[in-house]
Amino acid sequence: MESLTVALGERSYPIHIGAGLLGRADLLLPHLRSRQVCIVTNTTVGPLYADRLRQALPDREVLVVELPDGEEHKTLDTLALVFDALLERNFSRSCTLVALGGGVVGDMTGFAAATYQRGVNFIQIPTTLLAQVDSSVGGKTGVNRPLGKNMVGAFYQPRCVVIDTDTLRTLPDRELKAGLAEVLKYGLINNAVFLDWLEANLSLLLQQEVAALTHSIRVSCAEKAAIVAADETETGQRALLNLGHTFGHAIETAMGYGSWLHGEAVAVGMVMAADLSWRLGLIPQAAARRVKRLVAAAGLPVVPPTLAVETYLRLMAKDKKAEQGKIRLILLQSLGSALVKADTDLAMLELTLAAGSNLTER
Amino acid sequence: MESLTVALGERSYPIHIGAGLLGRADLLLPHLRSRQVCIVTNTTVGPLYADRLRQALPDREVLVVELPDGEEHKTLDTLALVFDALLERNFSRSCTLVALGGGVVGDMTGFAAATYQRGVNFIQIPTTLLAQVDSSVGGKTGVNRPLGKNMVGAFYQPRCVVIDTDTLRTLPDRELKAGLAEVLKYGLINNAVFLDWLEANLSLLLQQEVAALTHSIRVSCAEKAAIVAADETETGQRALLNLGHTFGHAIETAMGYGSWLHGEAVAVGMVMAADLSWRLGLIPQAAARRVKRLVAAAGLPVVPPTLAVETYLRLMAKDKKAEQGKIRLILLQSLGSALVKADTDLAMLELTLAAGSNLTER
Repeated sequence: MESLTVALGERSYPIHIGAGLLGRADLLLPHLRSRQVCIVTNTTVGPLYADRLRQALPDREVLVVELPDGEEHKTLDTLALVFDALLERNFSRSCTLVALGGGVVGDMTGFAAATYQRGVNFIQIPTTLLAQVDSSVGGKTGVNRPLGKNMVGAFYQPRCVVIDTDTLRTLPDRELKAGLAEVLKYGLINNAVFLDWLEANLSLLLQQEVAALTHSIRVSCAEKAAIVAADETETGQRALLNLGHTFGHAIETAMGYGSWLHGEAVAVGMVMAADLSWRLGLIPQAAARRVKRLVAAAGLPVVPPTLAVETYLRLMAKDKKAEQGKIRLILLQSLGSALVKADTDLAMLELTLAAGSNLTER
Repeated sequence: MESLTVALGERSYPIHIGAGLLGRADLLLPHLRSRQVCIVTNTTVGPLYADRLRQALPDREVLVVELPDGEEHKTLDTLALVFDALLERNFSRSCTLVALGGGVVGDMTGFAAATYQRGVNFIQIPTTLLAQVDSSVGGKTGVNRPLGKNMVGAFYQPRCVVIDTDTLRTLPDRELKAGLAEVLKYGLINNAVFLDWLEANLSLLLQQEVAALTHSIRVSCAEKAAIVAADETETGQRALLNLGHTFGHAIETAMGYGSWLHGEAVAVGMVMAADLSWRLGLIPQAAARRVKRLVAAAGLPVVPPTLAVETYLRLMAKDKKAEQGKIRLILLQSLGSALVKADTDLAMLELTLAAGSNLTER
């Protein structure tokens, strides 16, 4: 087991990574304030892992809430199912919510914990690669609205994150690849050495070689933890974590939740960000092409869906990073260093949005 | 105009109290982060006051959202109306929400501000006496669930509270009285001098004499501000503010939202708390009777609805102050001093719950 700490003063918390951690009650017990524990999971993950977790807590009053699976259920209505299950069992302010599942379960459980009786304890046990390297670190919680993703939520930190790499064995291949998109992101925005390592070890990761996976998860969590520690509520540096996301969110919204996986949309979004960075003269064309090659090698899409440029611009202006309709983008100044660009040249941006299968080409 | 400050470190904020403040843009402008301002009100208060407020902000992009009026609409579904109105107009993270209305509007707008894009600025303009002396101070925000009031929410402070006493002129008499219940509460829990003043001036308050109202609002806000400053997230002393509320919430839940006003339920709840305090030997019978007389003189109910003792106990065990089903009550140790009691004598509590019209009598 490897452990690291997300340093946020009195809200600091540990992340434990390793095989077989799901049965390790000793990792959870210090963070439970009372006997009442509610495991929030979904209909896919629950049947696989909820019992193992429940058995690790024999002396607790454990309630298991299984939510419907899928981004389309990341709503206020689904959240209400959690609240009402807690109320029916008279769960008090000293109860603990445990998120067992992917990013959707984690985001909703975190928001439920942030708001149930105005805030209760919360533990993350992410079971997808995407959730392990991204959404379980940093305290962003929330739900979607029809007009935009994650538009309702809270910054709320877990007391502890437990990453059991064994859970990846049941993860569909497509979802593993989607998780790799965020892993590649950490290399691109802040760690050129890790990017080289990823390029060399991508095939091992795709084969789910455990040591390689553990290393990539640890470095990813450490990268994100460092950025979050420096900027908990996203007023500055934290925005860099959104490389590819403004493009990606527009794709997800336009195509309808669930048709593109988040990681797939972010993957092609990173290629688009690299393309635009090249068009703006921030990085050489070869570097943009390397990004595209790496994304393709991870089995991720490098061709965005065919949408009108106006559609992209309209949806991108709705992004949370936008200020009064002005699009703010995360771009690359080298492979391993990103920056926030508030006043992107619209003509160049339109070239990127219209490039389709010709991204990184004239 | 009188002003006071709620001292919460970097979340400190001013409360301004006086006649004609609704048109005072200078009180609002320092707290607006951008041109985007959303006034959240309801179908009763909006037509009376929203235009006056809008006209005070001629150079801003002002969106007015009118919610249906009533506690039964304090729901996640109504909250969604606010989120979607903001999203439709592309309101960004730097927008400001202004709550214009009573406690329901304030609680929902505050929760919307706490969670829209994970947090935006928030100003309170309470237009009922209850909201002015209670729910606009302290940062408690939230919505109801069918199984309990205020069970979903956040602690979230406004940037400023503006109390225009002129708005009380359109307040129904019954609601003014309901607000007085919370005013009496501040005297009972922490200020014997104020309690004497209230006893002497109750008829002036019922006649809406402006100077008396202003004084009672200022003292009430100052009392609450002091308690909140000492205990922002209700881990200790702040619980004293719930005098009468555990009884009151049970009554509200049992009778259905809207049949008893919150202040009415709290009023009889305070008589019940005084009755129990007397039965437990904490205060003399004469003191309990004085509480009952004062509540009656304010035109508020002193006879609880006829509910089975078991119904009371079941609903009181669901209170947020309860710990794993154990009822915690706020009781009086004198008129002007309250305490938290975790291990109430059940036999005595049952006598109070069964007393009906004989509260404060053997």
